Amino acid sequence: MDPNTSRLAQRLTEAGQSHLLQFWAELSPEEQADLTQNLQAMDFQEINRFFKNAMEKSSSSKQEKMDNRMEPVPREVLGSVTRDRECLKDWEQEGLHCISKSKVAVLLLAGGQGTRLGVSYPKGMYDVGLPSHKTLFQIQAERILKLQQLAEQKHKFKCCIPWYIMTSGRTMESTKEFFSRHKYFGLDKDNVIFFQQGMLPAMDYNGKIILEDKGKLSMAPDGNGGLYRALGNQGILDDMEKRGTEFIHVYCVDNILVKVADPAFVGFCVQKGADCGAKVVEKTNPTEAVGVVCKVDGRYQVVEYSEITLATAEKRSADGRLMFNAGNVANHFFSYRFLKDIVQKYEPKLQHHVAQKKIPYVGAQGQVIKPEKPNGIKMEKFVFDIFQFAKTFVVYEVLREDEFSPLKNADSQDAKDTPTTARHALMSLHHRWVLNAGGHFIDENGTRVPAIPRDGAARSVTDDDNRNLKDGTDLPIKCEISPLVSYGGEGLEELVKGREFQATLTIDEKGVHELVKNGV
Amino acid sequence: MDPNTSRLAQRLTEAGQSHLLQFWAELSPEEQADLTQNLQAMDFQEINRFFKNAMEKSSSSKQEKMDNRMEPVPREVLGSVTRDRECLKDWEQEGLHCISKSKVAVLLLAGGQGTRLGVSYPKGMYDVGLPSHKTLFQIQAERILKLQQLAEQKHKFKCCIPWYIMTSGRTMESTKEFFSRHKYFGLDKDNVIFFQQGMLPAMDYNGKIILEDKGKLSMAPDGNGGLYRALGNQGILDDMEKRGTEFIHVYCVDNILVKVADPAFVGFCVQKGADCGAKVVEKTNPTEAVGVVCKVDGRYQVVEYSEITLATAEKRSADGRLMFNAGNVANHFFSYRFLKDIVQKYEPKLQHHVAQKKIPYVGAQGQVIKPEKPNGIKMEKFVFDIFQFAKTFVVYEVLREDEFSPLKNADSQDAKDTPTTARHALMSLHHRWVLNAGGHFIDENGTRVPAIPRDGAARSVTDDDNRNLKDGTDLPIKCEISPLVSYGGEGLEELVKGREFQATLTIDEKGVHELVKNGV
Repeated sequence: MDPNTSRLAQRLTEAGQSHLLQFWAELSPEEQADLTQNLQAMDFQEINRFFKNAMEKSSSSKQEKMDNRMEPVPREVLGSVTRDRECLKDWEQEGLHCISKSKVAVLLLAGGQGTRLGVSYPKGMYDVGLPSHKTLFQIQAERILKLQQLAEQKHKFKCCIPWYIMTSGRTMESTKEFFSRHKYFGLDKDNVIFFQQGMLPAMDYNGKIILEDKGKLSMAPDGNGGLYRALGNQGILDDMEKRGTEFIHVYCVDNILVKVADPAFVGFCVQKGADCGAKVVEKTNPTEAVGVVCKVDGRYQVVEYSEITLATAEKRSADGRLMFNAGNVANHFFSYRFLKDIVQKYEPKLQHHVAQKKIPYVGAQGQVIKPEKPNGIKMEKFVFDIFQFAKTFVVYEVLREDEFSPLKNADSQDAKDTPTTARHALMSLHHRWVLNAGGHFIDENGTRVPAIPRDGAARSVTDDDNRNLKDGTDLPIKCEISPLVSYGGEGLEELVKGREFQATLTIDEKGVHELVKNGV
Repeated sequence: MDPNTSRLAQRLTEAGQSHLLQFWAELSPEEQADLTQNLQAMDFQEINRFFKNAMEKSSSSKQEKMDNRMEPVPREVLGSVTRDRECLKDWEQEGLHCISKSKVAVLLLAGGQGTRLGVSYPKGMYDVGLPSHKTLFQIQAERILKLQQLAEQKHKFKCCIPWYIMTSGRTMESTKEFFSRHKYFGLDKDNVIFFQQGMLPAMDYNGKIILEDKGKLSMAPDGNGGLYRALGNQGILDDMEKRGTEFIHVYCVDNILVKVADPAFVGFCVQKGADCGAKVVEKTNPTEAVGVVCKVDGRYQVVEYSEITLATAEKRSADGRLMFNAGNVANHFFSYRFLKDIVQKYEPKLQHHVAQKKIPYVGAQGQVIKPEKPNGIKMEKFVFDIFQFAKTFVVYEVLREDEFSPLKNADSQDAKDTPTTARHALMSLHHRWVLNAGGHFIDENGTRVPAIPRDGAARSVTDDDNRNLKDGTDLPIKCEISPLVSYGGEGLEELVKGREFQATLTIDEKGVHELVKNGV
């Protein structure tokens, strides 16, 4: 062993991780160099501390029942698009005004790969099969572009919405390459800022780091709450300060309906003087697998669905709604000052969550073993772990059908949240925009299609026991409107009012197009 | 032509339907006999009148917009399982009391074939793939049996819930044969009464009956509203009177969660002195393809989703709920006296609804032609057409996840309301019953499964951008409880309280069974 390696071995021994070098003699010089490099970059004392704290937190939280400590979000901190309709215009104006002053940035959580989706590239590069075949990244980029235009038109101010994109070690290169190849979808390259969340090793239950191969540690991203650490150590906070960013909209890449930098949400939070806000959708089914925003011991947090009993999930308010119905959709508002406090003061004190996992590991003979049962843990922080530190926390309730349709799984008859459901959700929204702007759809016989359509082919009234039941084939009208034409349904009257369209209807910056099946 | 045929020809000529015999000379003697028999049974003057009225109604209703005439269901006629929880026990007691006096009958609408489901037999014979492989008919039969037992136990009265089953010409024989082969699933044969809804010919836009083959009329059932005519002309009303039936619960075969003769619903309607009641689920998405119960010009009716504009569908009350949210699920209460009035006085005055259809027909050369565009109509009445005649109409709102999961379509990644969704809905309900009765589920490692589970295999926290989003793989715990053990979740404590189970869990009259994968 050379002196460098000896020093490393010494550090490992002190940290109780000397097993990481057990196959040292069997490694090639290149493998030895790689392993050394990886290990030298790691702070084992810190990792051991993370492990100890995470395990303590995990065992203590198992003992306390969450249920008795939970309180619902009080009405006074809640803004609702269905219950506060008279305020919406005002909030939106406020948000647009902030945007026009370049005070608003968006921050995208895009560290995940599309594993469950069945692809090996970043989710944002996925094409769900819209008529335009735009990817999630492109849709979001164009919404930012359009919003800048809307703010500029209204306030006659040249403005900019910087876009911070958090990737992980696995997705950084392909994400950057994708944006570069597509010329940042029309955005100014300087206003698209990539940074990278950290990685942590998987550990066994005794706190030993797991080797996934003789010369390779089992590593995983540190959860979307890794955001805060990365904001500090990658210079993102400084960049925000330089740009004069005051408000940050944080969201997750996989929601095809996401209103990036949503002016109404931003305006609501700003008017309320909030340092932290969460956008939610109403949870209507007690057993829906969604975390809920609520108060626990007087502080806001997200309680995950796996943490509560059915009895609590089924509790209802006097109005008949579920008591804990503020479904978290990973869509948050932060003030810059709050983020700065978090990064500097609070985040370091947060303990990681423990996820028990089946982690492939190297056996004593050097063979790779895939365990049948969980054999270790991964450590993560969550983006919502910091809600508890907010001084003025607010909740903003929006309509699921307008704003939330995540892409999670590959298409299959069992799966929810698939490319098909995402595509349908977007087309259904755009169909409604056209109708509300005074347009109409007609079928191949020239007959107007009802506002709530169902697929004619699959429909047979007389085969039905009751034609009035929910129909399984209410496929949306095929309709897609470019974000460059409309951010949220605005500005469509002049294009569609009083006109009749046949699907597929697409509206983009070049105009209105009908792509009629079997047509000319 | 023999004298019989000549008389028939004369009748047809008078009715303007003489084209029905245009291929007479080309038919075999058997075909001639069949056609004659079919035609002789028909009242052409009546059919012509139906056509005229239906077309008038159809064209007039197109001109009037429904939207401005619609009013929501007022709170005072609404009973809600979420908003009137304090009354539920009382309503249920009332209903059980009526059942114990044998005053309650159930009436099943089962005229439909499983065409969209991809099978040629009646839907009630479908097995959605539960652990028990029970069919919809068996599940419903066993709920009736159990409810009789519950009423008897409580009131020490031998009682009976007669089950009237409306089939169509297409489903009568196979339905009866199925029940006979399965010994009426334990019910008394005399209390299962089959009857048949009528058929009507399809007509072209000029009122000519359509031939689907040279010697065969194009016929279809007359809609589930054919119920009322059939109640009269098949002696069902008389049978009800003889049995002393006072209240009738009408429902549709395809809802796997249906609470047949639901005592709480019956009790609510009885306490309100209603002659007619509709069970509804809350419509939460404006574009959901479901009809809504509302008032139009002061009278109750179901407005179908195709009849309203998007603006109306999107209207909201001050509480944020959709204004027209009483989603019709073909689940109704009638008093016997009301039904009698309907059959004798009101139904004959109702006009048929028109459904424009592509109807295969015989061309001049005798070849069968499948039209590309709608070429004619089918005429139907709907079961809810008679709501308008109710003197005291009430609405009863229940939870979708507890009571409504219709089986409509074959499994496919686009389809809703499939065997998979029906199976999951039932197992999810039974899982919740077990939890609420104090039972627990554990996984293969002996760890307790959270109340709101998701499939462990497909879950990987670190692959997710945010683990808190709605998950696509929240497959239910496999759990099925025989209706013979519990009608609505009652009576399970002694079987499950404090116990831990591994899926698949089944509970039937023989006991509690765990069918563990890879187990012994």
